[in-house]
Amino acid sequence: MEKIKAVIVGYGNIGQYALQALQAAEDFEVVGVIRHQVQNQPKELENICVVDDVDKLPVKPQVALLCLPTRSVEEAAKKYLAKGINTVDSFDIHTKIWELHCSLDEAAKQSGAVSIISAGWDPGSDSVVRTLLEACAPKGITDTNFGPGMSMGHSVAAKSKEGVKEALSMTIPLGTGIHRRNVYIELEDGCDFETVKRSIMEDDYFKHDETHVIEVPSVQALMDKGHGVNMVRKGVSGTTHNQLFEFNMKINNPALTSQIMVACARASICQRSGCYVMPQLPVMDLLPGTLEDKIRRLV
Amino acid sequence: MEKIKAVIVGYGNIGQYALQALQAAEDFEVVGVIRHQVQNQPKELENICVVDDVDKLPVKPQVALLCLPTRSVEEAAKKYLAKGINTVDSFDIHTKIWELHCSLDEAAKQSGAVSIISAGWDPGSDSVVRTLLEACAPKGITDTNFGPGMSMGHSVAAKSKEGVKEALSMTIPLGTGIHRRNVYIELEDGCDFETVKRSIMEDDYFKHDETHVIEVPSVQALMDKGHGVNMVRKGVSGTTHNQLFEFNMKINNPALTSQIMVACARASICQRSGCYVMPQLPVMDLLPGTLEDKIRRLV
Repeated sequence: MEKIKAVIVGYGNIGQYALQALQAAEDFEVVGVIRHQVQNQPKELENICVVDDVDKLPVKPQVALLCLPTRSVEEAAKKYLAKGINTVDSFDIHTKIWELHCSLDEAAKQSGAVSIISAGWDPGSDSVVRTLLEACAPKGITDTNFGPGMSMGHSVAAKSKEGVKEALSMTIPLGTGIHRRNVYIELEDGCDFETVKRSIMEDDYFKHDETHVIEVPSVQALMDKGHGVNMVRKGVSGTTHNQLFEFNMKINNPALTSQIMVACARASICQRSGCYVMPQLPVMDLLPGTLEDKIRRLV
Repeated sequence: MEKIKAVIVGYGNIGQYALQALQAAEDFEVVGVIRHQVQNQPKELENICVVDDVDKLPVKPQVALLCLPTRSVEEAAKKYLAKGINTVDSFDIHTKIWELHCSLDEAAKQSGAVSIISAGWDPGSDSVVRTLLEACAPKGITDTNFGPGMSMGHSVAAKSKEGVKEALSMTIPLGTGIHRRNVYIELEDGCDFETVKRSIMEDDYFKHDETHVIEVPSVQALMDKGHGVNMVRKGVSGTTHNQLFEFNMKINNPALTSQIMVACARASICQRSGCYVMPQLPVMDLLPGTLEDKIRRLV
């Protein structure tokens, strides 16, 4: 079997879990990791080619897993797509996905490559379930309730503010799709809490929700990667009311995000060029194996 | 907006709900109903063209909803596909889906049409969720627990036996994917219960599960179209264990089946020719509307 050649771009939280998921997948080969720091690698990268530019890899990858902060995704994706390398990211600003889709669709089609965006669990696998449930009961309301759990995107956004040494943004479900965000921050010495707090609360990530910024002596002491979803739809199929659906998960957040990115990297290989969100992909393409095997086991 | 021209083939339980679902969908036009009985139609068919052969319809349909017993699906699908009409069915014998797929894939490709098979909730929407959950946690076990509720396929199979006037097969979940089937039957006068019971228990539909056949004076008095699913997956993402997923629904069974058939009829219009099970379709194609609207609302 010809293995899919993948490169991991960025080696933070998601990148580390992505390596585990790629190594656990029999149909993938990790051809390298791209990171700024190319000296003194951790033990698990000992036998992996670590470089600071994809052109320095001895083998050209077919797909790049962009394990980068959301706001670095577009520029990085365009760079890889221009080289004819498929990209997968977990871009998570819901209100800007359509714009990213338009931008990367054009970039992907120019070079005949495939870009799969917002490939995490929300946006991502939850989007697939939300879409499916609307098809099952076209009229009705879906509420997606998150947490309690850390939001990686929100924590990175909070940490990026001047004066913040470390940050943890917890999402607290209040029911019917309403959430509170508790943002725990450790300040740099001499920084003003009220100024930092205001810069967090004015950020697009936070300004739409009830947000509490809390100063703590150690963010590290609060860290837990568990997260949860409770999605509920009550709706109408045809003219029949009271159709009830519920989707729940309790998961390690970066482990699931990275696993889904790997599944989408696999799916990228068999799509026509262009940009896709997960509900645009046949879910069967997320899995390895023959069509016969998958139909017999899963349908 | 150009509406999708659909014909309903068969007007039993599913056909009646399919009409409601098509009429509730703004992007569909019902061009007719095909049934043996073309006189004395029920009130809801008053303004609809009812004929016993598709060639007698004044307008050629783009897609046929095959609301027929599972065992009539293959022959009917081939007839419609040969005319270049897409087909959607809810074929529900899990062990024979691959064979039907091969047969109808060939038939569909010969005429440039599309066939979507096993488009119900299990097989169907559940298959999409099962596939997605395996992508989220590739190692682990998924249990699909059904009911309590009536199985339409199993009830039709029981009713088809000689000596059975009316039948209701209830699926009872015993947990971890194990089920009991309680089959309530009303006998024709003078028929032997033990003979009928044996013919039911030897049928492929029943012989793999614990089955109890129970004679009752009136099956009609027991009828309720509610059904349920509880799907559970516990598995591993990458090397991270204890990832927990659960999907539940409590639904009117024929209403959901028919609604899903309508969604698949819509999706059939934008697929390349061939045969598909639901996990082979982008879930987004199940819904009407522009891509931008769907991405903004659902991703």
